Amino acid sequence: LSDDGQRAVDEFIALLDLEQIDDDIFRGGNPKSVQRPDVFGGQVAAQALIAAGRTVDPDRAVHSLHAYFIRRSNPKAPIVFTVDRIRDGRSFTTRRVVAVQRGQGIFALEASFQLDQPGIEHQVPMPARPSPQSLATSTGADAEVIDIADDRPFLRRWPFERRRVPTTADDVEPTRGEWIRTTGKLPDDPLLHACAITYASDLVPAAAVLKAHNLDIADRAHVQVASLDHVIWFHRPCRADEWLLYEAESPSASGSRGLATARVFAEDGRQVASVAQEIMVRVR
Amino acid sequence: LSDDGQRAVDEFIALLDLEQIDDDIFRGGNPKSVQRPDVFGGQVAAQALIAAGRTVDPDRAVHSLHAYFIRRSNPKAPIVFTVDRIRDGRSFTTRRVVAVQRGQGIFALEASFQLDQPGIEHQVPMPARPSPQSLATSTGADAEVIDIADDRPFLRRWPFERRRVPTTADDVEPTRGEWIRTTGKLPDDPLLHACAITYASDLVPAAAVLKAHNLDIADRAHVQVASLDHVIWFHRPCRADEWLLYEAESPSASGSRGLATARVFAEDGRQVASVAQEIMVRVR
Repeated sequence: LSDDGQRAVDEFIALLDLEQIDDDIFRGGNPKSVQRPDVFGGQVAAQALIAAGRTVDPDRAVHSLHAYFIRRSNPKAPIVFTVDRIRDGRSFTTRRVVAVQRGQGIFALEASFQLDQPGIEHQVPMPARPSPQSLATSTGADAEVIDIADDRPFLRRWPFERRRVPTTADDVEPTRGEWIRTTGKLPDDPLLHACAITYASDLVPAAAVLKAHNLDIADRAHVQVASLDHVIWFHRPCRADEWLLYEAESPSASGSRGLATARVFAEDGRQVASVAQEIMVRVR
Repeated sequence: LSDDGQRAVDEFIALLDLEQIDDDIFRGGNPKSVQRPDVFGGQVAAQALIAAGRTVDPDRAVHSLHAYFIRRSNPKAPIVFTVDRIRDGRSFTTRRVVAVQRGQGIFALEASFQLDQPGIEHQVPMPARPSPQSLATSTGADAEVIDIADDRPFLRRWPFERRRVPTTADDVEPTRGEWIRTTGKLPDDPLLHACAITYASDLVPAAAVLKAHNLDIADRAHVQVASLDHVIWFHRPCRADEWLLYEAESPSASGSRGLATARVFAEDGRQVASVAQEIMVRVR
């Protein structure tokens, strides 16, 4: 974990350090050095989750979020997050967050938080995959996913390190595995780790959908993609600054939309999250 | 499809025929003959989807919905559904619906509708399962899921016929397959078929989660379950009055919550939907 890597993570943490405008109204910025035609979806989702979490007792952890991307975001304008305290129940707390830019809702997220309440336990086994230590850090097309208009390499500021798992012959469905962790340490606050998973998990689905068609997300002249929604279930506590395996597949695409689902495992085999996202795909 | 079956379906259609209070405000009833301590979650979700769809041009079909169950519902009170017209875009229309009873939000749903826009196409193969014609209609514990306080057999009024697929030895994960169709004909309106899938798909996840622990959902003295959320992606047009295979599994349970995901296939093998739901499970 280099100094550059820690600096990128510190910038990521700063992005999540929203300015409090009123009890339930927060304002978030965008990274100045990144030139994109829109705000990276994972960033808006992570900022919205932070806004929700700021209104919830820290003894309740986020266990799920559901979000819709509503309008194209503007990377040059701040984003205002307004939290609606939907419910404070005995065990569960529900929040809704609407993200607005210049009077228009660009994104809406609902999240549910829960007191720690032990109960039944099970999970699917982690698939056998090469360890992150045995793989090289991915570069190239994938690293460019979130750098559409800028010719500076985005990885310089990208707070996540990604190690792609080679496709194996026994895949019965188009799958796509990737080890991801932040490039530096995160503080111990569990909400920040959930935000990092939220941010990172917006990267994986598009690639899983396009893989089935040998389309390259970097081929912007022919392929246009946009996140439509995002859902995450956080099953077990984990650290996003340690390696997490995102095991993604795309069960279906039709009507210019593709769905991808992912299971997220810690290196010790615990399933820490499940993710799903539908993306719009237009091929010229 | 018996006369009784058609009558149950006609009652289901009547439940979805909401009373229009104002442009974007609708009121729904509950079946009088069914005694339950709360409203069946799939019913609230289906009614909310109808309310959303009533405010959308019929040339746009629902392709996804995300919902949270917020408070316990009251089966003796009507439910008022207020629609927020989040966005009317060139291709996509987004709606939010809040369901209220006696001043309190019990349920919130967001749904997205889209013009028919062909594009990339793929899907996972349907797993090899016995045909619905070769299986018997399921009765017993499962049929009682939605009939908690009444000792009349619920199937008399239950608008869905279910045929459980026996567990096969080659299941690597706890899976649960079921053929489901309405017990009578539905009109051709695609929104009604989406509502029927919404209603039916609230039944499958709890069983998939409990199966991993040999818990019986009908053992109400020891097992308490409640739906926490619900997400459906509608991939391809289909009819809910023809057999659909719900192939469910539960990847994870922890913290007294269990997640189940399901893929829904038409008998011809087309994947018509993907479903996920997290349920709360308390074992005494």
